Amino acid sequence: MSPIDGAVAVGLVLVVLDLVGTFVFALSGALVGVRQRLDLFGVLVLSFVAACGGGILRDTMIGATPPAALQDWRYVAISMAAGLLTFWRAGAIERWRNPVQSMDAVGLGVFAVAGALKAQAFGLGPVGAILLGMLTGIGGGMLRDVLVAQVPAVLKAELYAVAALAGAGVVVLGKALSLPLTPVVVAGVVACTGLRLFAIRRGWRLPTAEPPA
Amino acid sequence: MSPIDGAVAVGLVLVVLDLVGTFVFALSGALVGVRQRLDLFGVLVLSFVAACGGGILRDTMIGATPPAALQDWRYVAISMAAGLLTFWRAGAIERWRNPVQSMDAVGLGVFAVAGALKAQAFGLGPVGAILLGMLTGIGGGMLRDVLVAQVPAVLKAELYAVAALAGAGVVVLGKALSLPLTPVVVAGVVACTGLRLFAIRRGWRLPTAEPPA
Amino acid sequence: MSPIDGAVAVGLVLVVLDLVGTFVFALSGALVGVRQRLDLFGVLVLSFVAACGGGILRDTMIGATPPAALQDWRYVAISMAAGLLTFWRAGAIERWRNPVQSMDAVGLGVFAVAGALKAQAFGLGPVGAILLGMLTGIGGGMLRDVLVAQVPAVLKAELYAVAALAGAGVVVLGKALSLPLTPVVVAGVVACTGLRLFAIRRGWRLPTAEPPA
Repeated sequence: MSPIDGAVAVGLVLVVLDLVGTFVFALSGALVGVRQRLDLFGVLVLSFVAACGGGILRDTMIGATPPAALQDWRYVAISMAAGLLTFWRAGAIERWRNPVQSMDAVGLGVFAVAGALKAQAFGLGPVGAILLGMLTGIGGGMLRDVLVAQVPAVLKAELYAVAALAGAGVVVLGKALSLPLTPVVVAGVVACTGLRLFAIRRGWRLPTAEPPA
Repeated sequence: MSPIDGAVAVGLVLVVLDLVGTFVFALSGALVGVRQRLDLFGVLVLSFVAACGGGILRDTMIGATPPAALQDWRYVAISMAAGLLTFWRAGAIERWRNPVQSMDAVGLGVFAVAGALKAQAFGLGPVGAILLGMLTGIGGGMLRDVLVAQVPAVLKAELYAVAALAGAGVVVLGKALSLPLTPVVVAGVVACTGLRLFAIRRGWRLPTAEPPA
Repeated sequence: MSPIDGAVAVGLVLVVLDLVGTFVFALSGALVGVRQRLDLFGVLVLSFVAACGGGILRDTMIGATPPAALQDWRYVAISMAAGLLTFWRAGAIERWRNPVQSMDAVGLGVFAVAGALKAQAFGLGPVGAILLGMLTGIGGGMLRDVLVAQVPAVLKAELYAVAALAGAGVVVLGKALSLPLTPVVVAGVVACTGLRLFAIRRGWRLPTAEPPA
């Protein structure tokens, strides 16, 4: 493959992974909705919010309005499909927990890397791009949990946000060193996804502090 | 009436209904605030958020900044009036439950239709315009419930969001068929309000799924 | 001092107070995080949200994107420093409750005044500028509480938002009367901070209403 063919191939892979990530994030939202006994509409809202909420927050904050998730019908369609599937077969989705969690790790990596790239394209500096890359990855899950009146899992559970930080950090580092885009993107996704998968397998967690008496 | 006079009359009616909707949505926010024993400031915040939160979310997402509700003092004034009235006479507002619920259905229709129109004017496609029309109608109530740490009623109770979807859908369909604006707007408001009133009277609900064991 | 030297000196003082306010607001977020037994990441998120959330909401709503807090690394750095300090020494921060509360009152005044000024600079009228000044002061704390699934303290506790309203109101009044900027800013900060300190000392609260049976 020529370098250009390689970049096109990577681009295509990223689009597919982005849609896969959207689907898997939407499954997580729908499952929370079913467990909270929301009605069909509520389950679909949670699917869409979990899948697209992070990107919508990012786009609104950087001024990329209207947000991509509201302009491209595929995001809505994929979220609805995941929501309907879960509504109809929540038990099956539960049993596929392990493959879903692995695909979720891939989605996290793609979202964090794509989010950091888009933030840079809109003029954010290194710190802002890392924060918005992370927010793209974790924002949907946070909104999902807030909507069912629970403390976002990402604030207290396994290593999750740190993996998104790592993926976004690779993008920012790559730009600072003027490295070519394609390998940087691949490295960012691999870093985030790998770190997340390790964290799941090993049960890595961040420390908590002892609250004052 | 000439067609132009008709359009002006419909426009005037819409402005009045928009302000009536703002007042009634604000009553719903204030009642939640009083029941949660918030102080006077908290009750006024919930009034404003319930009345104007959906429009503010829409305007922020489509880049129509600053949001209309922050530029036009009438929205703030009407929200405050509804909040003070409820603070002072919560029992009376409770007893007027039925007329308030009927006016709320009218407000829902006006908000959903106006939201879809504004989203189209800012370049959103059909899917985005329907979603944002719906969000204009239900977003304030969702924010109201999130602020008192409860799962938004619209995600699990009677048919409400579907009525907003129908109203916004009529607007999008009318544009796709290049129909004249005035009858489309009237049809959208009537469709949403009528569906909502039927849903209240018949107790229509969306199905819920059985959570996995 | 010449008038220009005076304005420069006030400007410098405001920058310092803004950073102090950021630090103290971040302490409040971190303490909530530690008490809710969030992990290190969660504590840092709450620090940042409490310190910068109000400004981010304001900037997003007025179209000043990307928000200042994501473009200026000092806000992130100061929030992280406050979060780490609290994570490591939550007990000590608790014991410094009184000085922290006094500095928080200063931060509230600076945020409310700066928020109202920025809103005016982006074309908001008097009502919008007062609301956004207040939101700059209280929005971070509200987001902090929503993220841990609690009703925002500002909606039901001591006089807090009213102080922010007063500070923002002085700014709007000063513009309406075409008064020179420097004394108006000083008066706004003093009004808000003074009112808040009095409210703490005297235990001033707003009234609540009796919920209907």
